[in-house]
Amino acid sequence: METSKLLANVYASTCPSRQVLDLIGDKWAALIIGLLEDGTKRFSELQRSIGGISQKMLTQTLRNLERDGLISRMIYPEVPPRVEYTLTPLGETLCVPLGAIRDWAEEHINDVVAAQRGYDGRE
Amino acid sequence: METSKLLANVYASTCPSRQVLDLIGDKWAALIIGLLEDGTKRFSELQRSIGGISQKMLTQTLRNLERDGLISRMIYPEVPPRVEYTLTPLGETLCVPLGAIRDWAEEHINDVVAAQRGYDGRE
Repeated sequence: METSKLLANVYASTCPSRQVLDLIGDKWAALIIGLLEDGTKRFSELQRSIGGISQKMLTQTLRNLERDGLISRMIYPEVPPRVEYTLTPLGETLCVPLGAIRDWAEEHINDVVAAQRGYDGRE
Repeated sequence: METSKLLANVYASTCPSRQVLDLIGDKWAALIIGLLEDGTKRFSELQRSIGGISQKMLTQTLRNLERDGLISRMIYPEVPPRVEYTLTPLGETLCVPLGAIRDWAEEHINDVVAAQRGYDGRE
């Protein structure tokens, strides 16, 4: 499958854009990118700000985001070493679409919970 | 955790909006909602249009979307029974934000693949 801009198609299982959709749909990725929108952050700041994320999951998600070119990682040779994460210009292009998704989740949670209760009640 | 509109916070592990973020981030959900944006579809039409989705995964994702109030399911008493899926008004509110995510994946796939190659090359 060509990866040309014009031919990319998330509906084709073999198109690499399908994997990208999977990555950016990941809730941890969406939360991390939302935090980095406000500026560079250390690992510990990210961990503190995202309720319930494990050290392992945060490490793995940051590595994936770096590999995909969405964030950059800077290591400062201090004792202990300081490691900071920043959105790349490519990562910044995701802020608006991902922000809209996070906002949707927060704005419509009551409707979703009500629908779930109705569905579960009629089963 | 209150589910009031003002208090919902996707960064809190106990907030139900976190689960909603997980649901709408699911790539299958994003693809299904994108297809229903064009109008009501049968199960078989959805399956044909989404490369690589299994019958089981499509069934499960449609059930989740129905439970969350994003799609409705109509069964017509024909032989064999005809089953159709349609976006609810709540589901329609997701079309724009999810469309932006799908578009991003298709538009930026070349940048992401290039970043991945660079990352893998320096390891």
